[in-house]
Amino acid sequence: MKDIANIAVITFHALWGKKEENLNRIVGLIESSAKRGADFVLLPEMALTGYDDQPEKQLKDKMQFQEAEIVPGPSTDRIAEVTRKYGIYAFVGMPERDFPTRRIYNSMAVFGPEGLLGTYRKMHLPGLEPHWAARGDSPLIIQTPWGPVGCAICFDTWAFPELMRYYAAEGCRLYINITATAKIRGKYLANTNIEAGVIRDCIFVASANLGGKDLYNDFWGGSSVVGPGQDTLEAHYYIGGKYTDDQANQTKVNITTIDLSLASRYIYKGNPLLKGQTDFRPDIYAKMYEQLEDQFLIKRR
Amino acid sequence: MKDIANIAVITFHALWGKKEENLNRIVGLIESSAKRGADFVLLPEMALTGYDDQPEKQLKDKMQFQEAEIVPGPSTDRIAEVTRKYGIYAFVGMPERDFPTRRIYNSMAVFGPEGLLGTYRKMHLPGLEPHWAARGDSPLIIQTPWGPVGCAICFDTWAFPELMRYYAAEGCRLYINITATAKIRGKYLANTNIEAGVIRDCIFVASANLGGKDLYNDFWGGSSVVGPGQDTLEAHYYIGGKYTDDQANQTKVNITTIDLSLASRYIYKGNPLLKGQTDFRPDIYAKMYEQLEDQFLIKRR
Repeated sequence: MKDIANIAVITFHALWGKKEENLNRIVGLIESSAKRGADFVLLPEMALTGYDDQPEKQLKDKMQFQEAEIVPGPSTDRIAEVTRKYGIYAFVGMPERDFPTRRIYNSMAVFGPEGLLGTYRKMHLPGLEPHWAARGDSPLIIQTPWGPVGCAICFDTWAFPELMRYYAAEGCRLYINITATAKIRGKYLANTNIEAGVIRDCIFVASANLGGKDLYNDFWGGSSVVGPGQDTLEAHYYIGGKYTDDQANQTKVNITTIDLSLASRYIYKGNPLLKGQTDFRPDIYAKMYEQLEDQFLIKRR
Repeated sequence: MKDIANIAVITFHALWGKKEENLNRIVGLIESSAKRGADFVLLPEMALTGYDDQPEKQLKDKMQFQEAEIVPGPSTDRIAEVTRKYGIYAFVGMPERDFPTRRIYNSMAVFGPEGLLGTYRKMHLPGLEPHWAARGDSPLIIQTPWGPVGCAICFDTWAFPELMRYYAAEGCRLYINITATAKIRGKYLANTNIEAGVIRDCIFVASANLGGKDLYNDFWGGSSVVGPGQDTLEAHYYIGGKYTDDQANQTKVNITTIDLSLASRYIYKGNPLLKGQTDFRPDIYAKMYEQLEDQFLIKRR
């Protein structure tokens, strides 16, 4: 299994509703990153179309509904061509139309050396997203020469550590997060939760955010690769910085080389002092979540 | 239900192996905090005896084994007397001997206006703790005029967000964390995970740490009450500070008044845009953890 990888996390200013222009730049950015040696290239959530909702419009009149594509489709075909050509992985946010339900999802299209690998559908939808998107129900792990890699979008990462747990416990050393984190959410949400995840799960987090003004929202940018340090339990910025850093919202290709062997994920390994049991105790958590499931399903009725 | 509460989080220098001296100071600190209006008083993990293990000794010769008490017992009787007298809650770390198994636990004794309420037994044991302690298996929620309150110890909080999830989903607005966080663990472990928990679960975290030199370890101190801000998603220090602040390791009674109505815990409430379903989706996580449970149990065989 390979330990050393080149990662590109791109702060991207998506032009709202201008899919063709965005696609052209996305394809170009992936190609340019590939030529700079990237093995993995991340574009932000909804990079293909822009993010903002128009709350006054009906679903069928919304930009996201109109620009959504069934996958595979014309946009993913063009991106797959590049990742095949360069033999790399890419992750691009886009509105996806499901076939045959016609539902729209806030998705991440995932590509590799073989082309399109699939989509991850955002499981947690904050703010106005439920206006146009349905919720995904499934984690997505892709198998790579660097081992399994887990996929998530924005709110999935900021408020729901369960997904990272699952990926880390399944052996992932790299966690892909694409996001559209706006200034209105405040200064701490995104950075703090990335750092906590890195420390807690001893995993590398690669995160790409939109940058600049969309239709209504201003996005922080601050795309970064954060991972375990060499010594104590800490979150080290291998490239990029805090969402709130000066000029973090400018379009930028951040490329770095990381050593995934530092992703010890120690709580998932047998602890010799515990007869080889792990510090991580999914049997107990499963019971706790089952109990909550009963309670929340009752509340929903 | 009451919203406004006075919380005391005490940085305490436990004298290693000197239970009587420590108990006397603990009782005094609880009484002094009560006189200053505290409703909840937190002493650190293993405050009763000191924390450090002597790895070279057999279990029966270890300080923790020799000083452990069945609960209720002489030490908890003395503390219960004070909390009954003042009608307050207190949380004190101590080694507990189970009856009838004779197993030793790294426990938090929990007291209220009625006296002793029970113990919480640490579920996750880092470092050398498995040398002397068995692992607890159960969350502990106490019912108070401020609503339900959840209890945890140190590593339970730093690396296992499942426990805070459970408490927050069960309606807790206050999360009690007592800890023995040593400098050897690095600068970021504790603060970052408290802050992330506050942001993620929109809950108040009250945390008390040992301060100064034990037998081998130096402890950060940095006891604090961290909670949601009034505006965006942030972690606000209502009292105390980062573990690594200057002089954070000095014995100190930090008392503050907090407004628990700010603990919105929004992801656990019905989202009107999702037909009243919550953003929190325990049914999905339960499935994920069950899958991990199978996998980890297989690995253990």
